[in-house]
Amino acid sequence: MSMISIAELQLLADAALRAAGASPLQAGATARALVAADAQGLASHGVSRVAMYAGHLRAGRVDGDATPSVRAGRGASVLVDADDGFAFPACELAIGEAIQRARQEGIAIAGVCNSHHFGAAAYHLEAVARAGLVGLAMGNSPAAMPVAGGARALLGTNPLAAVFPRQGAAPLVIDLSLSEVARGKIMVAASKGEPIPLGWALDAHGQPTTDAAAALQGSMLPFGSAGGGVKGGMLALMVELLVISLTGARFGAEADSFFEAEGNRPRIGQLFIAIDPAGMAGMPVYQARLEALVAAMQAEAGVRLPGARRERLAAQAKAEGLNIPSPLLQSLRELAQGH
Amino acid sequence: MSMISIAELQLLADAALRAAGASPLQAGATARALVAADAQGLASHGVSRVAMYAGHLRAGRVDGDATPSVRAGRGASVLVDADDGFAFPACELAIGEAIQRARQEGIAIAGVCNSHHFGAAAYHLEAVARAGLVGLAMGNSPAAMPVAGGARALLGTNPLAAVFPRQGAAPLVIDLSLSEVARGKIMVAASKGEPIPLGWALDAHGQPTTDAAAALQGSMLPFGSAGGGVKGGMLALMVELLVISLTGARFGAEADSFFEAEGNRPRIGQLFIAIDPAGMAGMPVYQARLEALVAAMQAEAGVRLPGARRERLAAQAKAEGLNIPSPLLQSLRELAQGH
Repeated sequence: MSMISIAELQLLADAALRAAGASPLQAGATARALVAADAQGLASHGVSRVAMYAGHLRAGRVDGDATPSVRAGRGASVLVDADDGFAFPACELAIGEAIQRARQEGIAIAGVCNSHHFGAAAYHLEAVARAGLVGLAMGNSPAAMPVAGGARALLGTNPLAAVFPRQGAAPLVIDLSLSEVARGKIMVAASKGEPIPLGWALDAHGQPTTDAAAALQGSMLPFGSAGGGVKGGMLALMVELLVISLTGARFGAEADSFFEAEGNRPRIGQLFIAIDPAGMAGMPVYQARLEALVAAMQAEAGVRLPGARRERLAAQAKAEGLNIPSPLLQSLRELAQGH
Repeated sequence: MSMISIAELQLLADAALRAAGASPLQAGATARALVAADAQGLASHGVSRVAMYAGHLRAGRVDGDATPSVRAGRGASVLVDADDGFAFPACELAIGEAIQRARQEGIAIAGVCNSHHFGAAAYHLEAVARAGLVGLAMGNSPAAMPVAGGARALLGTNPLAAVFPRQGAAPLVIDLSLSEVARGKIMVAASKGEPIPLGWALDAHGQPTTDAAAALQGSMLPFGSAGGGVKGGMLALMVELLVISLTGARFGAEADSFFEAEGNRPRIGQLFIAIDPAGMAGMPVYQARLEALVAAMQAEAGVRLPGARRERLAAQAKAEGLNIPSPLLQSLRELAQGH
């Protein structure tokens, strides 16, 4: 591992993406988001993705010169076109629109179409919380999970996040994908030749499997599946339907895997909702009710506030820098030099 | 079992609620909702609840003369005060506001405070779908589940629903509570002296239990718990935080159980969001994307469209009437006569 400051890592990720063809706009927004994920301890959504993103640029799956723009909007709703670029600059635009419109109207929704991987869903809501608004984020992703009763992967793992700003404290942050486990856990088991629990995945024939290698050829399962439940699949379907029908995005089975360099422009979508508590029960009531539940949670041993770990790690990274695997830093340096 | 028409059952439920002190406004909206649940095969949210509701009226937990009203609103957001009455007339008012505002602004949110049990969450969204809008509904409920890592029930089971209107077909309806199983399943096991799987519930000391009777003294667990997951608890917390902070409602642990006649006025809350696809990618895109995913689902053997069963049962009930247990009908008749 090597220590590196947030600013230095951002410059490095930015240079690597620009060397692969990203404009300063596309590279800058993307590098900021990836490094923020690393700072919060979310390495799987951090600069470890730069090589994959650079591969997508080189293969034409992402347009490095894309310019996101507002395509349609009225009152409290707006649609941003990511223009086949990275998700991050388009999401920044969408979030800015959502904040401004929610302040006016009490709530606003901003969708993003023709988009790509949007990383850690809650990242996009940080600006919403700073604006004193409640935020919701969701996105779809290339096919990973079947619908309830199905054998073929139709839906993405479909992350869902919420943020609740607090007075004088870090916001509460809820952020989860709707699969039973992250694909990385299955990859680790496969590399060790270890079995996985039933309910994590199906094999290529749509049959339940405990064979991690077979699972990697098949599909992940929605969360709750390990206990025999179908509710996770219903929620994943809900997110998929909301995203594709409102933004016009492709659904999971129509978007090629992010884990391959070759494939189509994914054209998946994202949705962000910002809500101003002042438009409903009012800000004093919002604060009081939030703090009442926080106090009840903190009165219980063993309960952690959601988002507290990310906040603590981000503060530490800001003060001390980031600990990044040396081979990863080396590969970023090589990418930055155009290799 | 006895056959009875929807109209007759509604009159009977209405009379039973009025005999217990509900105004025509309160009784009418409530009877309609309960009978609609029975018609859709959701007996646990149907007229089997009338005796409980009548008990709440008599004990003063519900004000039978309550008049719901719009308390605050701006642009695309509004708060309705249920005035300690039943949830149903207040939710009707909130839904009407949400539809009207969403048509104008593209999205709208309507909250309900000082409320009571709102039954099947998706019921309230039927009018949203008829208006051609996408709908989301959620509510909190008296304490039933701990937060992740906790031992004490702080959160409700917190139903969450979504509706997607289709052209020339019944809407897609997703409707679920965030507990691993319905409490009714644990009650059935307890009455038979049978064990329950680990992950369904905790005992009164906050310990995992397979003893159904001990579970009834303890708390339910969020869905996904049976497989060892914590995501269901995070989602239940998300719904609880949204509802209480935006509407000013009590959280689960502050509202006394609905299963007792005596207790406080629950003052829980509900949230409804209506979204006009015309404000984003547009109605033709909405229809095309929805139908593309529906077609992909229908191409798979074993996949059912969500809401199809409810729709089929409701059509059957409309044509043939409802099959209601005779003792339940008898008790409704006695309640209607003021017993």
